[in-house]
Amino acid sequence: MTTSTVRGPRNGVDTPTLFATLDAVKGTPELAKFQFRASNRWVSGTHNRSTIRGFYGAGAEDTSRTTDFTFDADHPAVLVGSNQGPTPVEFLLHAIAACLTAGLANIAAARGVTLTSVESTVEGDIDLLGILGLSSEVRNGYQGIRVHFTIAGDAPEDVLRGLIEQSRQRSAVYDVLTNGVPVDLTVTTA
Amino acid sequence: MTTSTVRGPRNGVDTPTLFATLDAVKGTPELAKFQFRASNRWVSGTHNRSTIRGFYGAGAEDTSRTTDFTFDADHPAVLVGSNQGPTPVEFLLHAIAACLTAGLANIAAARGVTLTSVESTVEGDIDLLGILGLSSEVRNGYQGIRVHFTIAGDAPEDVLRGLIEQSRQRSAVYDVLTNGVPVDLTVTTA
Repeated sequence: MTTSTVRGPRNGVDTPTLFATLDAVKGTPELAKFQFRASNRWVSGTHNRSTIRGFYGAGAEDTSRTTDFTFDADHPAVLVGSNQGPTPVEFLLHAIAACLTAGLANIAAARGVTLTSVESTVEGDIDLLGILGLSSEVRNGYQGIRVHFTIAGDAPEDVLRGLIEQSRQRSAVYDVLTNGVPVDLTVTTA
Repeated sequence: MTTSTVRGPRNGVDTPTLFATLDAVKGTPELAKFQFRASNRWVSGTHNRSTIRGFYGAGAEDTSRTTDFTFDADHPAVLVGSNQGPTPVEFLLHAIAACLTAGLANIAAARGVTLTSVESTVEGDIDLLGILGLSSEVRNGYQGIRVHFTIAGDAPEDVLRGLIEQSRQRSAVYDVLTNGVPVDLTVTTA
């Protein structure tokens, strides 16, 4: 581990600020409590749209985002949708790739490794007999997800592989997808 | 259950085609095997971009999507990112809302319920002491997710609530988030 070494910015990561943030949270652990949010509105059929913007963290409501992020989801034609966006389950594949990649860039910067390229592909196998209600023995969700990274940088192969492994060990999305999370669902009828 | 009743299109759902699809899959269960995919490329720092388009399902590669879907992810300023997109964990919140909403529209159409509005909010609590490596007792991922639906339609409250419950019981994303899924991670160094 070299995370205690003084490092300059690298890989587009402001490494000094990253370490200063870590020190601030060490001193005030309450700063680490975050709440993220999304809201969603049904459009028509299987087409719906989420808006993401505000969150709580570091002791305050975030004010740094100046616009909403909006995302459409839909089912494809073969599932009687209208292709207005990816399926909800495909966003899970985006989330795991994005989380591992973001962590990797931070970890590489902290370890003094300059990355030249990071690409990944994610595949998820799902048997729709579950969600279609045609088999009680088939789960609703993915049966397995495979992530493959191709990484290049100015370090030996074992060091590059170590970056991915450390990112996996610190990934919020990897944790949620592999271990699950309690989901509470409530309803108001208007 | 009223799914065996002949139903016309409703809620933007082509209900006859939905039932025909169910019948086709009953006859040929192999049609239910799907593989979804995403690819991701690191941009700079914690900013990266995923592309979603092709998938396998219903016995063939999909050809109905005519363009790529692309999504940026990033960390916010307070986490030393540049706000080029939501965080990866926020996409999980979008995914669960979108999945439950899409299922709800299909189930309502199948049951002959006309929906007038469906909105949902999702919150996820996360303590970053985990991913920051500052506590071995705090998990990396969300500690809990809360989903709240507000639904209106031409049916009594218990029927509307039953739509949400059936959607939960058939949701791929709800299953993955609550039960977890095996994730296999492999690496190539370029």
